[in-house]
Amino acid sequence: MPSDLVLANRGVVDSFGHVSMRHPDRPDRYLLSRSRAPYLVVDADIMEFTLENEPVSHDERALYAERAIHGRIYAARPDVAAICHKHAPATIPFGVTGTDLRPIFHMAWAIGASIPIWDIADRFGDTNVLVTKNEMGDHLAHTLGSHRVARMRGHGGVVTGATLREVVFTAVYLQANAESLTAAIGLGPVLYLSEGEIDAASHTLFEPLLQNRARENWAAQIVFDAE
Amino acid sequence: MPSDLVLANRGVVDSFGHVSMRHPDRPDRYLLSRSRAPYLVVDADIMEFTLENEPVSHDERALYAERAIHGRIYAARPDVAAICHKHAPATIPFGVTGTDLRPIFHMAWAIGASIPIWDIADRFGDTNVLVTKNEMGDHLAHTLGSHRVARMRGHGGVVTGATLREVVFTAVYLQANAESLTAAIGLGPVLYLSEGEIDAASHTLFEPLLQNRARENWAAQIVFDAE
Amino acid sequence: MPSDLVLANRGVVDSFGHVSMRHPDRPDRYLLSRSRAPYLVVDADIMEFTLENEPVSHDERALYAERAIHGRIYAARPDVAAICHKHAPATIPFGVTGTDLRPIFHMAWAIGASIPIWDIADRFGDTNVLVTKNEMGDHLAHTLGSHRVARMRGHGGVVTGATLREVVFTAVYLQANAESLTAAIGLGPVLYLSEGEIDAASHTLFEPLLQNRARENWAAQIVFDAE
Amino acid sequence: MPSDLVLANRGVVDSFGHVSMRHPDRPDRYLLSRSRAPYLVVDADIMEFTLENEPVSHDERALYAERAIHGRIYAARPDVAAICHKHAPATIPFGVTGTDLRPIFHMAWAIGASIPIWDIADRFGDTNVLVTKNEMGDHLAHTLGSHRVARMRGHGGVVTGATLREVVFTAVYLQANAESLTAAIGLGPVLYLSEGEIDAASHTLFEPLLQNRARENWAAQIVFDAE
Repeated sequence: MPSDLVLANRGVVDSFGHVSMRHPDRPDRYLLSRSRAPYLVVDADIMEFTLENEPVSHDERALYAERAIHGRIYAARPDVAAICHKHAPATIPFGVTGTDLRPIFHMAWAIGASIPIWDIADRFGDTNVLVTKNEMGDHLAHTLGSHRVARMRGHGGVVTGATLREVVFTAVYLQANAESLTAAIGLGPVLYLSEGEIDAASHTLFEPLLQNRARENWAAQIVFDAE
Repeated sequence: MPSDLVLANRGVVDSFGHVSMRHPDRPDRYLLSRSRAPYLVVDADIMEFTLENEPVSHDERALYAERAIHGRIYAARPDVAAICHKHAPATIPFGVTGTDLRPIFHMAWAIGASIPIWDIADRFGDTNVLVTKNEMGDHLAHTLGSHRVARMRGHGGVVTGATLREVVFTAVYLQANAESLTAAIGLGPVLYLSEGEIDAASHTLFEPLLQNRARENWAAQIVFDAE
Repeated sequence: MPSDLVLANRGVVDSFGHVSMRHPDRPDRYLLSRSRAPYLVVDADIMEFTLENEPVSHDERALYAERAIHGRIYAARPDVAAICHKHAPATIPFGVTGTDLRPIFHMAWAIGASIPIWDIADRFGDTNVLVTKNEMGDHLAHTLGSHRVARMRGHGGVVTGATLREVVFTAVYLQANAESLTAAIGLGPVLYLSEGEIDAASHTLFEPLLQNRARENWAAQIVFDAE
Repeated sequence: MPSDLVLANRGVVDSFGHVSMRHPDRPDRYLLSRSRAPYLVVDADIMEFTLENEPVSHDERALYAERAIHGRIYAARPDVAAICHKHAPATIPFGVTGTDLRPIFHMAWAIGASIPIWDIADRFGDTNVLVTKNEMGDHLAHTLGSHRVARMRGHGGVVTGATLREVVFTAVYLQANAESLTAAIGLGPVLYLSEGEIDAASHTLFEPLLQNRARENWAAQIVFDAE
């Protein structure tokens, strides 16, 4: 999936993130790669899963241990058609300090006026921090609520959207916003986008024109072709 | 335009910045790409616009929503022959904190002894922060005044100059200055260039010799050729 | 050794780090390159050493001055089968300030709940800070104790493991953790992984499946082929 | 000169730094490129100058405005056989804040226990900050004294050495030390190398073996060949 490549190339996912989309014809299914780094995923790696995170066709391939994230969010959020689970380094500090992670420039509006933090320990105690069970995915989906993004303490986060392009766009600018915000906090009190500005942007800044412009740019900068 | 490539390659513009120049023969016109990421702009993308930001030839191509920045600054500033609108990450923090953004080393003299901040909300309230109307461009041009650079709160900034090379030069060193200044502020009280030093530099550091030296260097480091 | 290449490509080692493994058939020997930057090491550079750090075959090739690190840790730690000595820039600050270097996200669990600091000056006074004698290697091994990682004040550190892949994995995430932790400390009080979480991760996050996924990814991103 | 390429590739010099060496047969002459970015310098660009910074052969080529740095340091320091004038971004903050810039890890020992700051304004008032006159070069050389490195406030710095390789080595680790030290100062009180450690390192860490190892590594990582 080209989305994997764009996100990997921009450092949003590393060896262990993943990107899924809801099945276009069957809303009770979703598509996700076999267990493989996003940088390397090719079409033949894509598999189909139920919202209970069972593979539809049983074969020998290894699966992502954390696919529970995907199925349970699709189950809880009919409006969501794509999900990225990421470990972007710039966002980790905001997950472990609880510092406000809010948009400071317009292209980052989609991360929303606030981003909840899901701490797996609150419900499940000492774990390896992976979302390996459906009940964990349900709990994460509950914390996500109606937000587009959730932070995962000591782990990373999830980005959701109505399309794969929205998710890539939001994830790239979430990372850019986290980097600039970290620097800004070192300089002084920060003026965030207002809620009114975020609302105004939500009506115009996901236009296909803008998404296509970014898409064309990011695709051209991919330095490795998996095939 | 090679200027787009240089700026994109050095991270001054991302998918959404743009670079224009005043028409060399008609000062009431300017040249700007169709809506496309600077990294990918080629000669055939360049279009001609009036200072009211209307395209001279009507065709089907999508246009930058923010071209109002360009036309209205050209109208207000006869001395300006090139403009870059940018989202350089290192400068965003200075737009949202109001921290002094002044030159700390000689090559950055051209950013000027002070850089005004234009906050779109001051006049236009809650918007999507884009400069989509001529009156917004006029207001930005008014805040820019006789400066070479203006910050745009929650957005990025504009860099102007008498030539495209000046603009590229100023924009590259604005970014470098912002990066080093952010680090310096973390170390202790900062000694900026004096106004006398900035003035002295203004008489010598835009010589074609220096601009050509930088140009040759930056061009050689471009890693992607759009054609 | 591909491990050298992965670590060099990710900035964990520079011109002066090195990676060794215990001889698979003779636990009283280990394998290490002749004196050469990890980025450039090829199979023919690999030599065999005793745990007293003497080369088994005498030839003319220059040797790493600090091979004492390797032999004396292998002697002290029968469970260790691979070692990386590194100068990763992100970890240097934690060696000279004594700031807690603990995992803040799950993939970094392997660095352990605490990382001892070895200061060569404590026993050996003013030296050139290199570990050039067996007694220095012994002292470092003593400070390392049963930990997987040790910091070396004013120098870098060592990462040990049961396999080369474990060492590469731990070293890469040690660096990522140091980078994110440095940023987090600038934001506010930090919530580290709990000891229970580190323990839970230790049972599951070194699975071959995960290591292979990272390996495949990192190998694909190597930009230079030494041969 | 390959030294230019190594330094440019590692970001020590940008479009405007330069590297010179004393003439191997005539100690009252030195070799320096015509006015050109170090990244692009080739053998044919090298020219010969007197210690008064006059070109020995008069031709049409443009010259570096700041060659006064080189000739006057060679005149004042018979032990110096190579000089780099640089604008490395990581060192600029230490020039404008006066923060201690001392080695925190062994490979940076050569920058010395202290690095004087030369402020051109102390003697010459408001200038464009360039070292354009021999008397400025003399004043800088006086501040440098017997040190290997000097900072230049609002500008960059100079690195000197007994060979080109020493200069490249010192300049690369000066930059690495500045980066790690900036991060360390954000974490807490810093333990620098002791004077005894710096002295011990000075007897062993400039060995040809180590310089060659770095040289081979850095050369292999150069991504652009000027010819």
